[in-house]
Amino acid sequence: MNRTTLANAIRVLSMDAIQKSNSGHPGAPMGMADMAEVLYNDFMHHNPKNPKWSNRDRFVLSNGHGSMLMYSLLHLTGYDLSMDDIKNFRQLHSKTPGHPEYGYTPGIETTTGPLGQGLTNAVGMALSEKLLAEEFNQSDLDIVDHHTYVFLGDGCLMEGISHEACSFAGTLKLGKLIALYDDNNISIDGEVDGWFTDDTVKRFKSYGWHVQSVDGHDAKEIKKAIKKAKKKTTKPSIICCKTNIGQGSPNKAGTHDCHGAPLGEEEVALTRKQLGWQTPAFEMPQDVYTGWDATEKGAKQESKWNEKFAKYSKLHPEKAAEYTQRMNNELPANFAQKSKAAVEKAQVEADAMPTRKASKYALEALGPLVPGLFGGSADLTPSNNTFYSGSKACNDGELDFSGNYLSYGVREFAMTAMMNGMMLHGGLVPYGATFLMFSEYARNALRMAALMKIRGLFVYTHDSIGVGEDGPTHQPVEQTSSLRIIPNMNIWRPCDAVESVAAWKSAIEKTDGPSCLMFSRQNTSKEERNNQQVNNIAKGGYILKDSIGTPEAIIIATGSEIGLAMQAAEQLGDKVRVVSMPCTNIYDNQDDAYKESVLPASVTARIAVEAGQGDFWYKYVGLNGAVVSQDGFGESAPGAQLFEYFGFTVENVVNTVKATIGE
Amino acid sequence: MNRTTLANAIRVLSMDAIQKSNSGHPGAPMGMADMAEVLYNDFMHHNPKNPKWSNRDRFVLSNGHGSMLMYSLLHLTGYDLSMDDIKNFRQLHSKTPGHPEYGYTPGIETTTGPLGQGLTNAVGMALSEKLLAEEFNQSDLDIVDHHTYVFLGDGCLMEGISHEACSFAGTLKLGKLIALYDDNNISIDGEVDGWFTDDTVKRFKSYGWHVQSVDGHDAKEIKKAIKKAKKKTTKPSIICCKTNIGQGSPNKAGTHDCHGAPLGEEEVALTRKQLGWQTPAFEMPQDVYTGWDATEKGAKQESKWNEKFAKYSKLHPEKAAEYTQRMNNELPANFAQKSKAAVEKAQVEADAMPTRKASKYALEALGPLVPGLFGGSADLTPSNNTFYSGSKACNDGELDFSGNYLSYGVREFAMTAMMNGMMLHGGLVPYGATFLMFSEYARNALRMAALMKIRGLFVYTHDSIGVGEDGPTHQPVEQTSSLRIIPNMNIWRPCDAVESVAAWKSAIEKTDGPSCLMFSRQNTSKEERNNQQVNNIAKGGYILKDSIGTPEAIIIATGSEIGLAMQAAEQLGDKVRVVSMPCTNIYDNQDDAYKESVLPASVTARIAVEAGQGDFWYKYVGLNGAVVSQDGFGESAPGAQLFEYFGFTVENVVNTVKATIGE
Repeated sequence: MNRTTLANAIRVLSMDAIQKSNSGHPGAPMGMADMAEVLYNDFMHHNPKNPKWSNRDRFVLSNGHGSMLMYSLLHLTGYDLSMDDIKNFRQLHSKTPGHPEYGYTPGIETTTGPLGQGLTNAVGMALSEKLLAEEFNQSDLDIVDHHTYVFLGDGCLMEGISHEACSFAGTLKLGKLIALYDDNNISIDGEVDGWFTDDTVKRFKSYGWHVQSVDGHDAKEIKKAIKKAKKKTTKPSIICCKTNIGQGSPNKAGTHDCHGAPLGEEEVALTRKQLGWQTPAFEMPQDVYTGWDATEKGAKQESKWNEKFAKYSKLHPEKAAEYTQRMNNELPANFAQKSKAAVEKAQVEADAMPTRKASKYALEALGPLVPGLFGGSADLTPSNNTFYSGSKACNDGELDFSGNYLSYGVREFAMTAMMNGMMLHGGLVPYGATFLMFSEYARNALRMAALMKIRGLFVYTHDSIGVGEDGPTHQPVEQTSSLRIIPNMNIWRPCDAVESVAAWKSAIEKTDGPSCLMFSRQNTSKEERNNQQVNNIAKGGYILKDSIGTPEAIIIATGSEIGLAMQAAEQLGDKVRVVSMPCTNIYDNQDDAYKESVLPASVTARIAVEAGQGDFWYKYVGLNGAVVSQDGFGESAPGAQLFEYFGFTVENVVNTVKATIGE
Repeated sequence: MNRTTLANAIRVLSMDAIQKSNSGHPGAPMGMADMAEVLYNDFMHHNPKNPKWSNRDRFVLSNGHGSMLMYSLLHLTGYDLSMDDIKNFRQLHSKTPGHPEYGYTPGIETTTGPLGQGLTNAVGMALSEKLLAEEFNQSDLDIVDHHTYVFLGDGCLMEGISHEACSFAGTLKLGKLIALYDDNNISIDGEVDGWFTDDTVKRFKSYGWHVQSVDGHDAKEIKKAIKKAKKKTTKPSIICCKTNIGQGSPNKAGTHDCHGAPLGEEEVALTRKQLGWQTPAFEMPQDVYTGWDATEKGAKQESKWNEKFAKYSKLHPEKAAEYTQRMNNELPANFAQKSKAAVEKAQVEADAMPTRKASKYALEALGPLVPGLFGGSADLTPSNNTFYSGSKACNDGELDFSGNYLSYGVREFAMTAMMNGMMLHGGLVPYGATFLMFSEYARNALRMAALMKIRGLFVYTHDSIGVGEDGPTHQPVEQTSSLRIIPNMNIWRPCDAVESVAAWKSAIEKTDGPSCLMFSRQNTSKEERNNQQVNNIAKGGYILKDSIGTPEAIIIATGSEIGLAMQAAEQLGDKVRVVSMPCTNIYDNQDDAYKESVLPASVTARIAVEAGQGDFWYKYVGLNGAVVSQDGFGESAPGAQLFEYFGFTVENVVNTVKATIGE
């Protein structure tokens, strides 16, 4: 069957599904149909019947609004995605949502839509492949050996994250990353000449990429270029494909009219005519299915790999077991018990220290228990304390992919989206750090981890005005609470080494969503706890110091303000309870009985203390309570002085408690 | 006096101040001292005695951690920054905070520290210069004619925003923007070779910049390059200056040891020796002051311009008056009254519509009242409804700087930081739009506007699950509340055209901080109001429908959920009050009597209704209240269906109210 007909199947499926749902983006899938056809039919190693085959090629559609391209490909090549699913495009709980959503559809490797991030996920996937290949492959037994392909559009290339990701991919020489750029000269505001005039070829050469330019509707050229790109193993490749948006539509192709709206019934009919397409909507000729079907080829590819892996398992049984376990995203069986012991040990042995040091202490304790733990920082390694004794640099000077620690450069957003890509790839447990303030540069990637329900270990030090002299640009105020309200995200703000180890343990164990770990620059106190209290840290909030009898007031605090709360309680005498609340998100999920035991409904004199914006805390203290918080911006001065200046003093907490209970 | 000695004055001042405060970044100012010396002594047009002279050259230190470079320059050239101020480096309420802070120090044009944003502010400033020159200059009377200079480091160039800003600056051909890159090969993690290997020359050529490379310690070369850059008027220029970080320090120069920590007493002494510097800390030889003093030269430069402007005022009195008013950031005297009339008119004439259309309605009403209003969108113009009948495109195809509307491309972060730069430059009132979700890509620039206390008109449409089919990647959930807690930021979420005009009016009038304006994709209802109610919108929260007698329950709602609240109240009868709360930030600032009149303390049966994450609302409803909110991620489906699915129904609101009052 001729290639254009195969590509036209994508065009027809896309325009019909979008027309039916009366919503969507036909231009992109119709423009990229030829690129996709060549990639899938001539290059992709994948098994539609087992989308989780660990050595499959990864494919990411970074310009996710072209989702019908993906759904067409998955349907046509034989994934579990029926024509009924296609008909349900953009309908509630369908397998074909408006943008590709990880976990909704077999064969979707990542959720895309927010531009530039899919490309960056792909960089993370390609990096994982390289790291795992280095770790697991043995002489001729290259069990890790696949490519990562990514399609992207003008929008992705305008976004700043494309610079961070592609600059870094060039430096890392990710030779098995192959990007195809849908260069159609159109974005939502119209023809891009007024706002996007980069010489993209030169730009990517400046990053050290292998760059080619082709006619994106010429299958031969595309094929030749992908072949060449695969041969270039020392550089990532980009193939700039000149395309016509909405190719096939006689009146709307080449214009932004077909970018974000259905073609309209009339134009759909005219397009059918122009393409010479005979079957009605949602009926595909059998020979088209035959031309696309990848199930047999895919089964062969996987079974060939299975044979290789069987041989590998025989020769290297331990490595094989570890590979399988890690690709299944499982922790060693003893992790729960050993990590619990580490928390308990911290209670016995760890001294008072800044919690950013406590974080390193936690890494020393837990790091060895997590095979595939892979660290990094966005150029703040010495401040974040993320390089521990088990760390080995990947890029301190010469590249060394046997390492387990990456200096990401000053690239917070790319680091975070790359970590998402690495999690999605499987095999590694990435953690990455920056100052809490600069979580803002990466904010949407944090959200994407939460949305995709994947693990994330996001380490943020310098978590309050305690930052001191660097001043308000570097002092978090609203950041902690603003992260707490991202759905499916756990925010930990531990007060000492014990809570820090517990926080790391929880974050490592949470495989269905990300966690942010907030740590202080400055010293904190060390708290005493009995066994029950140590165990209760995992509940997110617990009684750290109890009152005698029903409390007259409850002080709720987190992180570096726990010491303050404890001193205030000390002064106030036996009537005051202190609740440490290192993770509100987890506390909220405890049963009512537990929550009533910690914060009895009858006690409304509640005072929250946190060196951050305070509005969030009314959820716990209510209208009769009070919040000692940092509601304005900080200042540049030594941290201890700022705590005093902004009212984080024992005296102020004591007075606030007294005022609240009406003394 | 020889240039090296002048430059060494910066080195010595910087290392001494940092040593005294025992905190700071000596490496950068010592490395950039020669670049700064040449720029300030041979090129900068500025008057130290009048830092607000409107036609001064702008200088931005994008790598803001090198703040001592700025303070040294300002002190030495004659600004109101004494040696005592230098001694107080990084101390509470000093004029010399850890990073340059706008409003703290005369001569600081913008707050920098978060990397890449200063560079982007500078792009905005250079754009403003170009737009204002086009608008105001007359034949030989070029009253707007200055350069924008920016220093930046490796960190700025790694950040994604540098791509967005520099790509766009190239497209816009900002010929009077001159960047000097401090290429010292060092970042916090060490020598950058492992993580930053861009060919920066090639990269900037790909953006259409004029690029030169020089020895950053050779004054002659630097001077020649800046001269050449000034001559190149059709392209922005970057001068890559190869420097030695911490130049002058015998043992720490060239290493990351001098990046972020004081040199230490001993090394300070050795550096003094190596530089042949005779005077002790905080004492400058008189001839050094003489060599640097720019007060006389600056006074002459300004007075020459003043003469020109006097001539201009004679020939073009209206334009001169407008220029002055706009550069002083003042609105026309009649704005308050005319905009009030526009709000009242909307109550009479505007129909129900999606609030994103109401936003355009507001622009039609208020736009003509605001000279210098300058719009734009990050490639979502047709969806954001930000191009109104008074708009004229700057870059729809050919560049046209007589326009007042910019398509920023898919560059949310650069758009926002450029808008900050434009506000700081003066003369224009920029507004810019994207989907609310993608405010996240720009989040830290929003915060910077709040921190700098400058106006910001950030327009965010598609503000909830009402987005519909595009799905959870595009449906805001936690965004509105997470923006509300940024200090000094007003968040408006209007419910209809009347509140939309009031929101725009408030945002335009707020010159000491930014506002975000959230608008719906979908239709909303039109509410009835008497005059008092129309006026009360400006108070941020007000009674939209009152109960008869003391309310049994109060429903608080915002934006698209007001219609729902009103219908529920209708069903519940006369006992329920509805409070519309379009701007909580402004409501919080009302006096207690007003707040008691809206939300009486005695009424604790309060129900907040908002299609967003609900934790924030406990601040108003307390522990006895309830919140009807969207706490998890959305789904891809038609918007109306999602409202139903997620419980935003009259029935659910009615039942929640009943449950709250114990019925």
